[in-house]
Amino acid sequence: MNRYVPISTLRRLPVYLHYVRSIKGERKNVSAAVIAEFFGLNPVQVRKDLAAVSGTGKPKTGYDVEELICQIESCLDCNNETKSVLIGAGNLGSALLSYNGFSDYGINIVAAFDTDPETVGKSIGGKPVLPLSDLESICRFSKIRLGIITVPAGSAQEICDRLVSCGITAVWNFAPTILKAKDGVLIENENLASSLAILSRHLLFER
Amino acid sequence: MNRYVPISTLRRLPVYLHYVRSIKGERKNVSAAVIAEFFGLNPVQVRKDLAAVSGTGKPKTGYDVEELICQIESCLDCNNETKSVLIGAGNLGSALLSYNGFSDYGINIVAAFDTDPETVGKSIGGKPVLPLSDLESICRFSKIRLGIITVPAGSAQEICDRLVSCGITAVWNFAPTILKAKDGVLIENENLASSLAILSRHLLFER
Repeated sequence: MNRYVPISTLRRLPVYLHYVRSIKGERKNVSAAVIAEFFGLNPVQVRKDLAAVSGTGKPKTGYDVEELICQIESCLDCNNETKSVLIGAGNLGSALLSYNGFSDYGINIVAAFDTDPETVGKSIGGKPVLPLSDLESICRFSKIRLGIITVPAGSAQEICDRLVSCGITAVWNFAPTILKAKDGVLIENENLASSLAILSRHLLFER
Repeated sequence: MNRYVPISTLRRLPVYLHYVRSIKGERKNVSAAVIAEFFGLNPVQVRKDLAAVSGTGKPKTGYDVEELICQIESCLDCNNETKSVLIGAGNLGSALLSYNGFSDYGINIVAAFDTDPETVGKSIGGKPVLPLSDLESICRFSKIRLGIITVPAGSAQEICDRLVSCGITAVWNFAPTILKAKDGVLIENENLASSLAILSRHLLFER
């Protein structure tokens, strides 16, 4: 199914997916209105989101739960393995390497890269840490498709350029900076510092 | 300094802060135009963002680098310690407990809570893992201000309610669900699954 799905819908789909997986077994059908009520969302929005992956539900009964799970999984491509590498096995990088939750979304980190001689050669979360100088050869040989950047902000653009030069078209950037890449390369920023900024600012006014 | 700073500006401030920290020592002054060019951002936007924390820069020279660093840090409240707790010491929770980067933003995780008897009593990343039944007493006694939720989606709302009942007004939610709380409580969602959804979908069309 290759229909267009808006980014805002894509952001909400994993939330719906968790919910419909949780009610599987309990209910055969679920309506957009029920999902909307559970999350306190606008039912019109939920209906639009689900229409993008599953068409309109049946009148009165809504969607078949099992069918809806399959359709969302297929839309999010959870069932195909996406080979990825992580660059920067420092604190945050190590944390992500040790986190097993990415495999639920089909993401398999096959290796990490670092420049620190004390880290290179080790294994973190079961993934080998290789020297950064091997980045290009491994990415090309193993047909890596996603790069996860957890290096300091100052090195992130250089790493991004190197990844793109090996044919990587999706970058998940955890470095607190803004990366540039040619058209066709998707850069998804996960700026934890931005979230902390908003939380800290809120708390400042609570004092 | 208690002036109003828009959320979109707050999200970009940590990015600017990293950059101006990196040029400290090299340059005495920096202009909004230089920062905008470095990140490929619209100079009008950068000028507006900086005006919210620092007023307008001097004509020609722009901002004094050291002064600007202090002003952004003060706006983001980096220099005051915010005591926080983390609930759910599973994979992601453990990863966050082991990550040292939060202290740069004044966030100090003082304890983690879990229900798993095998995890409770351990120490992860130097933080004690306490039984969830102690959540309320510890939060009240230690005047905890921020709660970090890394429990499964199905338990997240209950944990959020318990935190709010102890007076916590800022919640950083990593569970892939949507949390509800009364007015005055800020919930910042860090939905890693949403990012993965967007990246996976992009790669699906590259096949």
